[in-house]
Amino acid sequence: MELRLINKDQNEPQKIIQVGNVKFGGEELVIIAGPCAVENRKQIFSSAEVVKIAGGHILRGGAFKPRTSPYSFQGLGEEGLELLKEAGEYHQLPVISEVMDTREVEVISQYVDIIQIGARNMQNYSLLREVGKTNKPVMLKRGMSATVEDWLLAAEYIAAEGNLDIILCERGIRTFETYTRNTMDIAVIPIVKNLTSLPIVVDPSHGTGRRELVAPLSKAAIAAGADGIMMEIHPNPCEALSDGPQSLEFEDFKELVREMKALNSFVKIN
Amino acid sequence: MELRLINKDQNEPQKIIQVGNVKFGGEELVIIAGPCAVENRKQIFSSAEVVKIAGGHILRGGAFKPRTSPYSFQGLGEEGLELLKEAGEYHQLPVISEVMDTREVEVISQYVDIIQIGARNMQNYSLLREVGKTNKPVMLKRGMSATVEDWLLAAEYIAAEGNLDIILCERGIRTFETYTRNTMDIAVIPIVKNLTSLPIVVDPSHGTGRRELVAPLSKAAIAAGADGIMMEIHPNPCEALSDGPQSLEFEDFKELVREMKALNSFVKIN
Amino acid sequence: MELRLINKDQNEPQKIIQVGNVKFGGEELVIIAGPCAVENRKQIFSSAEVVKIAGGHILRGGAFKPRTSPYSFQGLGEEGLELLKEAGEYHQLPVISEVMDTREVEVISQYVDIIQIGARNMQNYSLLREVGKTNKPVMLKRGMSATVEDWLLAAEYIAAEGNLDIILCERGIRTFETYTRNTMDIAVIPIVKNLTSLPIVVDPSHGTGRRELVAPLSKAAIAAGADGIMMEIHPNPCEALSDGPQSLEFEDFKELVREMKALNSFVKIN
Amino acid sequence: MELRLINKDQNEPQKIIQVGNVKFGGEELVIIAGPCAVENRKQIFSSAEVVKIAGGHILRGGAFKPRTSPYSFQGLGEEGLELLKEAGEYHQLPVISEVMDTREVEVISQYVDIIQIGARNMQNYSLLREVGKTNKPVMLKRGMSATVEDWLLAAEYIAAEGNLDIILCERGIRTFETYTRNTMDIAVIPIVKNLTSLPIVVDPSHGTGRRELVAPLSKAAIAAGADGIMMEIHPNPCEALSDGPQSLEFEDFKELVREMKALNSFVKIN
Repeated sequence: MELRLINKDQNEPQKIIQVGNVKFGGEELVIIAGPCAVENRKQIFSSAEVVKIAGGHILRGGAFKPRTSPYSFQGLGEEGLELLKEAGEYHQLPVISEVMDTREVEVISQYVDIIQIGARNMQNYSLLREVGKTNKPVMLKRGMSATVEDWLLAAEYIAAEGNLDIILCERGIRTFETYTRNTMDIAVIPIVKNLTSLPIVVDPSHGTGRRELVAPLSKAAIAAGADGIMMEIHPNPCEALSDGPQSLEFEDFKELVREMKALNSFVKIN
Repeated sequence: MELRLINKDQNEPQKIIQVGNVKFGGEELVIIAGPCAVENRKQIFSSAEVVKIAGGHILRGGAFKPRTSPYSFQGLGEEGLELLKEAGEYHQLPVISEVMDTREVEVISQYVDIIQIGARNMQNYSLLREVGKTNKPVMLKRGMSATVEDWLLAAEYIAAEGNLDIILCERGIRTFETYTRNTMDIAVIPIVKNLTSLPIVVDPSHGTGRRELVAPLSKAAIAAGADGIMMEIHPNPCEALSDGPQSLEFEDFKELVREMKALNSFVKIN
Repeated sequence: MELRLINKDQNEPQKIIQVGNVKFGGEELVIIAGPCAVENRKQIFSSAEVVKIAGGHILRGGAFKPRTSPYSFQGLGEEGLELLKEAGEYHQLPVISEVMDTREVEVISQYVDIIQIGARNMQNYSLLREVGKTNKPVMLKRGMSATVEDWLLAAEYIAAEGNLDIILCERGIRTFETYTRNTMDIAVIPIVKNLTSLPIVVDPSHGTGRRELVAPLSKAAIAAGADGIMMEIHPNPCEALSDGPQSLEFEDFKELVREMKALNSFVKIN
Repeated sequence: MELRLINKDQNEPQKIIQVGNVKFGGEELVIIAGPCAVENRKQIFSSAEVVKIAGGHILRGGAFKPRTSPYSFQGLGEEGLELLKEAGEYHQLPVISEVMDTREVEVISQYVDIIQIGARNMQNYSLLREVGKTNKPVMLKRGMSATVEDWLLAAEYIAAEGNLDIILCERGIRTFETYTRNTMDIAVIPIVKNLTSLPIVVDPSHGTGRRELVAPLSKAAIAAGADGIMMEIHPNPCEALSDGPQSLEFEDFKELVREMKALNSFVKIN
């Protein structure tokens, strides 16, 4: 595969992407958490508080949601972005949210610190080019059936427009297995590290679709060299408007952050 | 899966979508052909001529091309649409081309008779909504790892905006098999017919990626009840700027059209 | 892939395998039908009668059944073979049944006209070698995740022992799609025809897992050049001990045989 | 899925399987290593020495090799078992090797301490039953396209014959990704732990097919809770008769064992 801009650079073998005080690609594990979708003020503020208290770094929350059915909850739109930004500022957490439309890149850029491209839009080349023209870091999720080559070439689309602040995110691929929502491909972590200078984050919530698998898969990703973990949490997963079964309760999240940080410290030293 | 608008309607079990004199969903097999990408005037005019002479119905040709690498030929853009439209008008063939960006829907609508949504954008919901607001028929290709449910719900997104003129197109899915570019899922033809009132077209060029498999897979699709076949042809496949290995030569195309029409007549009678 | 014995032979581009009066690889479509498993005398005799009356050629019926769970019905064993043979002889139909154990090859050979290797045993190389030493034709089903190369090299194992009477059988592969039990890979029909001299049969019952898809997929396979179709029928599918949802009722089967024969005649002439 | 014998037992939530001094399912990580195939005395003895010196526990080495092509090296057969046993005894290492034929179970049982069922034979139910009648521990590798349910029910086949000493082994599944030989499904580690009382081992050599990915995937598996790691090593990977590209050199193996043990200690304490 022909990588020109994101390939491993002998001078800069690991790119550091800084967002506020947070560094992707450094020694510290970056923890991104929050609800699947911003639902209301109380929900996003309580989530932000827990992320902060637990020692997480970035607040996530969907405002424009790519739902399989047009009849499912589609997110609060710009109102959701407003709430996300407020909650992030209040708790001093940078925020990330997904963009789905080239026409929304500008407005979303005003609210978020990192722009997310979701799995369904990984090969939406117009959108990739548009976020490539911004000066915001972009998190590029792997498509559900994207090969490593497809994925890295999608990152090249962003880079080709001048934006090299790209964070890759593995979130599971589609296979015949039905026990999990997707099959997490942990091998891509070292592959990405070998082929590119970009940081890589892993999303075990979407990667497995099952709450009880988030902790072991997060740890697996850390042991394999991931730079960050992104996960869904919710004050009351049973009542979540989307992705409840894969969202962690607050107390479990706090405990997991402690364990992840300890593991990352061990891995980085050894 | 919850289908509200495209589900099988007892009053209208098979929707007929008319484009010029061509009817999708009727007795006659609709044949769509042309080059992967419009490359120059001569290429698209000679292709159009062959489509017309052979007895084909619609001219295809990419102007905005979704290429895996940003360093591959990306299409001629609006100039390509202009040439496509001219060639179609000259040979009295409606034309189809792909849209990749919500901002381009309006301009593309001025050139084409059918708007195509490619496999990579099947879950680009903003784009689906935008083409749902036009009064042009839309061809919705199945995503590379889209389940039948994902696909039909994507069609619902278009329908929910008021546009019910949706033509589904199976173009192969991603599997472990590497001998072919994709694995064509012929079973979706009767499945779509059982669940919805929409017509379905099959694209064996992308579905197999191999020229020699286009004829047998086209026939298989017809025998299974497809309403149309879309394929790539090129005056000189070896020099095609994209998809050469799966493009038919003109003479082979003419022969195949004859065979497909005969088979379709047989199938429709029996 | 290195094919030495089953590769396309310039002198014998299509191998004809004769079983009784039936010829695999000739002009006539070979129809193999019967219940998933032999359950009792009445069931297998009534099935045989219908196969005969409908114009089918070979009677199938499992005696040793490879069931996913050890707690499911495992087949009648040798008693089942006895009944199958009797029913076949009474209605003058050659019979086929599956072998699962190297130690059973000899006994099964005494009852059947064609030995079947199931999908789960496609790479059971000891078993392939053992049936390769018999003088019975072997039907080799494709494994659930076998590439074309894996499959043809498995056939080479049989051929390498001296038995070249190999009939390939496509029965669907495993993909992410859950609407059907498997995804039928119709493209392998022309691929096998291009690469080898062996006949190929298709099993749409296992290939789809849904009764209503058996007819359209059978026709698709015929149009793509299949030499035969194998399907499951049952006097009372709702009460079948295995594979009821994919078994045809007798009347539907008779009608389908008529249609398949007509289509095959058309395809072979055109 | 109906698990009767291997399901999580409230009295014995984690089964300990003892082989010599080695305990599968205990605190200590079990390390199994050796060449893909026993090639000659010098190769297996030098491999055994390294396994012992590095602190590994069990020596692996194929004697009957399931090769995709009948024209590839098929293993030394019983002579290979003889050499494996000798090398194991000399270095006080229990040994494991694969059985492929019901008729060979008895003879292989005389040489090995653990009988391996390979991925290709995971649903060879006759073989499963036969090893279920022995008193040797069985390592059951997951089939290339086996769901968790298929796999655990295959283990039930062994258990149903009375042998409950079953060690599961994840070795990657088949997906569309071609960069790696298979896609390792790390999520099955906690899934197996949640559903059954059986220990689980992971094989990153087959799971990735690439030497440079063995270390990170081994660590990922340990962090996710694996009870053991099995890997291929070779005195000279470039000259290996099989699986060279995924075999570790001796020095790299020694270093990896040190790292894995440290990680496992950390994981077990925290």
